[in-house]
Parts: sequence; structure tokens; C-alpha cells
Amino acid sequence: MRSLNDMGEFGFIDRLARIIPSSPTVVEGIGDDCAVLRVGERLVLVSTDMFIEDVHFRREGVSPRDIGWKAASACLSDIAAMGGAPLYCLTSLACPGDETAVFLEEIYRGMLSAMSRYGAVIVGGDTTRSPRGIIIDVIAVGEAIGGHFLRRRGAKVGDVLVVTGSLGCSAAGLHALTHGNSCGELVQAHMYPSPRILEGQWLCTRESVHAMIDISDGLCQDAGHLAKAVRLGVDLYPERLPVTPALAQYCAEHGLDPVQLMLSGGEDYELLFAADAKNVDKAMEAFHHEFRLPTTVIGTVTDEWTGVRTNGQIPPREGFDHFKPQTPENS
Amino acid sequence: MRSLNDMGEFGFIDRLARIIPSSPTVVEGIGDDCAVLRVGERLVLVSTDMFIEDVHFRREGVSPRDIGWKAASACLSDIAAMGGAPLYCLTSLACPGDETAVFLEEIYRGMLSAMSRYGAVIVGGDTTRSPRGIIIDVIAVGEAIGGHFLRRRGAKVGDVLVVTGSLGCSAAGLHALTHGNSCGELVQAHMYPSPRILEGQWLCTRESVHAMIDISDGLCQDAGHLAKAVRLGVDLYPERLPVTPALAQYCAEHGLDPVQLMLSGGEDYELLFAADAKNVDKAMEAFHHEFRLPTTVIGTVTDEWTGVRTNGQIPPREGFDHFKPQTPENS
Repeated sequence: MRSLNDMGEFGFIDRLARIIPSSPTVVEGIGDDCAVLRVGERLVLVSTDMFIEDVHFRREGVSPRDIGWKAASACLSDIAAMGGAPLYCLTSLACPGDETAVFLEEIYRGMLSAMSRYGAVIVGGDTTRSPRGIIIDVIAVGEAIGGHFLRRRGAKVGDVLVVTGSLGCSAAGLHALTHGNSCGELVQAHMYPSPRILEGQWLCTRESVHAMIDISDGLCQDAGHLAKAVRLGVDLYPERLPVTPALAQYCAEHGLDPVQLMLSGGEDYELLFAADAKNVDKAMEAFHHEFRLPTTVIGTVTDEWTGVRTNGQIPPREGFDHFKPQTPENS
Repeated sequence: MRSLNDMGEFGFIDRLARIIPSSPTVVEGIGDDCAVLRVGERLVLVSTDMFIEDVHFRREGVSPRDIGWKAASACLSDIAAMGGAPLYCLTSLACPGDETAVFLEEIYRGMLSAMSRYGAVIVGGDTTRSPRGIIIDVIAVGEAIGGHFLRRRGAKVGDVLVVTGSLGCSAAGLHALTHGNSCGELVQAHMYPSPRILEGQWLCTRESVHAMIDISDGLCQDAGHLAKAVRLGVDLYPERLPVTPALAQYCAEHGLDPVQLMLSGGEDYELLFAADAKNVDKAMEAFHHEFRLPTTVIGTVTDEWTGVRTNGQIPPREGFDHFKPQTPENS
């Protein structure tokens, strides 16, 4: 019998989706960043994200406040990915119990500062014992403003793929942390990501934007989710990926390939969206005017194949999967 | 500095409640079984419950379907405790990855059967790697029917405390499981609890019922939560506690004290409510007519002291706390 290690996280989720029944009041169920639920006249978004010591974070080199910020940001980014407004969070925390109350409170303060920055408050949770390490599950509850939200599903043949901000810095920051290298900007990108809440809401109001996802598992993996949702293919252009000076310098100094980090690094929490090729320039210009954040066209949507290719070629690996062999930068 | 082991789960939650800000749209925040949130005209209930291998369950002697049922039921019971209707669940699951997909699907099938029995569907979640053991976090989203719900807060001096069903069987079932004793009825009570969803909704419509909680941590502990919420005391009458024949027989055969199991065993997921002493008989009779489930008056609310006493005496221990020394039946 196949184990989870054999089939991978996304293979298992596909199997689960087949045994879990749907319901008429569920607007969007398993398979997108958030569940979308009809409550009276409103559409409520709910997402949950687990953050586990020695899988998603290590205590070395980071503060408990960093840990809290990142746990909260990763979950809030799911709300951003659908263009929603975060309102409330719940947090389950398990730990062995020998941590000081001050250490644990610092984790909560980190979560609280991320949540309050993006308009959410903690309204509940659970506290319990773990046999090993800290386990945090953050649940974000938000709302689709005016009933509008963006799905992973919706990309059309000929659409361009656009990414906000820059990629690969989080993966390089993790490399710096685990190898004892100092590079504040990259470590900051890894531990203090900014979920693109307002940017997501803005993109959600553009007719030219057809589908959206946040980049948590890596560009290839997440572009693959957009493609799979409509059974189309995407072509990524590695030479167009936006490299920051800090990433270029760090990679040069440590013999790393910046393109590889940008393609499959993950945890950048930038937004990736598919948009009408004709009207995208105008939208990108208006976006830059609004947020002073760059956007870059990094691919197209095609019906010539399914899945992800780079310049028409099948890439050596797709991205991050918790149950498949790890990418070098995460190992 | 004090560790979580020193201050206990509830001491830590009290500290957290002081650093977490409140918000006007939060009808009920930290400190009750569910968060109660205003969404348009509706009141939405949200609760989360972590269920961790070797803390909340062991794989020995139980099926993966049992594990799923219990994880879901524990969380649904929080909705029952406020008289709500469960609608949706999300589930985060972490595991080392060497489990078969079939084993994990069986856990989901157990969760699905509990949820569908009580009217909820799975709408999302997270799947990730854990360094050790299975970790499940269930999030239940429900609604306060007609905007009505019961809080922990609300008991009045002179109220009687009433419990549904029977107590102690879950703790005895755990004892049987961990000691290799066979007693189907008790193991069933431990692994297949029935959250009192319809009963909670019914009680929520009675004017004579002032406050409610579900018994997850043990009668003394949970009665203490009702008392603390209004800064009053409760007096429990151990001699009135409802002993089932199976519990009496098992305790006699294994030298256990049934009263102790009923007072502090936990995980019975029965409802405990405070009600007007004058009108409670009528309500209990109507309840029995509706559900064919016994209810028992097992205590009173008093202003003569704060906290929990049994027949006016301070009990040797209050109940279950994940970070304080375990009670014998759980050790």
C-alpha cells in the first residue's frame, strides 16, 4: 500500500477530495487557499495553516516573536490569495510545557502584531501538551468584500502570469539561517514575510485578473496549482524572474543558483495571478501607482500541454511538497 | 521564570486573555467554548481542538476511524456547549509520512461520519509533515440559531447544576484500554462520545437555563469554569452522580473509585448547565420526553465561596489540566 511519502501531499489531497462530499452552501471547498462559505448575505473565508517546530521553523537564530509573526502571516496569506479581508483568528498551540510563559507569550505577541497589522484579532483557540516541540495551528476567518473573491480556478488560454514583489529571498534567508551566514535582508524575508492583503483585495476588483494564488510552496508548484485547476499548462520564463540585489549577491557568494531559488524556494507569500494579456499593462501600472510594489510578467497560460514548463521544457522539479524529497535549499 | 508546567493550561489562558485586545464585532472572545462572531445579521460560532498522538490518543487498541470520530466529536462538542448548530469543519493533519494513505483516509472517514451525523461538512484544511506522531486540529464553524446561544457566564446564586447522561465512563474506558482490560461499553464511551448537539440546541431555547459548558476536562474542572465566569462557587453532591452499571462493575472489579472518575475523569462530552431551581423539574421532564436521556441535579451555585467544593468541602483535586500533574486515571 502506498504511503504518504510515496504519493505526496497533493496526491493525498486529491484522494481526500474524492471521499469528502460537497454541500450547496459551500461556495468553495477543498482545493483552494480558503474555504468560502455563505453565511446569510455574506461570504466568509476560512483557512488553517499548521506551523510545526523542526518542520516549518527552528528556534535557533530566531526570536519567539518571529515564530509567531510567521505562523500568523502564512495563514493570513491564504486570505490575501483570494482577495479577502481578514477579520478574526483562532490559534491552537501545543508545547511540551517546559517553555516559560514569557517565551510563549512572545509567540502570541508576534502573532498579534501580524494580525493587528492586517486588521484581524484573536478570538479563541486551544492550548495543549505536545510530546515534542511547539505546534501552532492558525485559523484565519475573513470576508469576501462585496461578495467578490478570486479562485485558483479561472486562468484562460493566452493569459499572462504575473507575480508581485520578488521571489527566492525567503529560501535564501532559510539557507543563511541554517548555515550560520549573516544576511539581514534575506533572513528578514524568511521570518517576516508580508502577506499581500491590500494588494490581493485590489487585484480582486480588476476585471482583467482571472485567477490568483499566494506563493507558499514555490513558484513552479503554485503556478502548477493554477494550471491544474483549469486543466491547462503554464510556461514560465526564468530569465524574467525578478532577482533582488541581495539575492544575487548572496547566491554569488555561496554558489547557489538564484533562478532555482526563485522557481522552487517557497514561502515568499507574494501573489501570483493570471490576467488578460491585453489589459495587463494598464492594471500593472495602476498597481504600481497604488502600492509602490513591482509586478512582473513571468509566464503565460497555454493549452499546448498540462502542468508547468519553463521556456517550453519540463523543469527538473516542481517545488515543495511536505512528503516528497526536499529541494536542496530546504534540506 | 514560571513555565507552563508550573502555571497550568488555565493560568496561561488567563495571562493570554490580558494581552489579547477585544473588538466590537466579537460577541464572545477568548474564555468560552467557541468564539462568537457577528457576520452581517448572523452569529457565527468557531472552535478549534487539537488532538495529538500520545497525548490525546494512542493507536493501540483503536482503529484510525475511531481516532477521527473522537477528534471531530471533541470539537463539535464545543458547538454543542453553546447550543449552536455545526455547519462546517476544517481539519489540519500532520503526520510523519510513513502511514499508508488508506490509514489516513480512515481517520478522515471517522471525522466525516461524526460531522455528517451532526450536520457538518469538511470544507478545507491543511496537510503537512510532523517530526513525530499524528497531530489533528479540527476547526468547527457553526451558527447560533436565531441568534441565541448559551455562555459559560450566566449562573446565578441558588441555581442548580444539572448534567446530561452519565459521567466517568470515558475515563474508565481509557483505563480499560491502557490496562488491556476488555469492557466494550466503556471503551465505546471513550472512543465514540456523542456530542450533545440537539440537546444543547434544545437547552438553549429554555429560559430557565442560564449557563452551559460541555464536560471535556472533568466535572470539577468544568463546573469550576462555570463558577469562575461569574465569580461564584459551586457545591457538587458526589452521592447524586449518575453511575452506570458498567462503570460500577468495572470499578468494583479493578479497585477504582467511580466517584473519583465521575468528578475528574473528563472526555464525557456531556452537557453541564446551571438552571433556575424553581423551574428545572419541568425542563428536565420535557428534556427526557424529547431525548430519552437522563438528566441529574448534581450541585448548586452559591455565593458562600468561590470555586468548586463537594458537599461544602474542598476536593483533593479539581480535574484535568494538560500542564499540571495528571490524575491517576489518566496516568
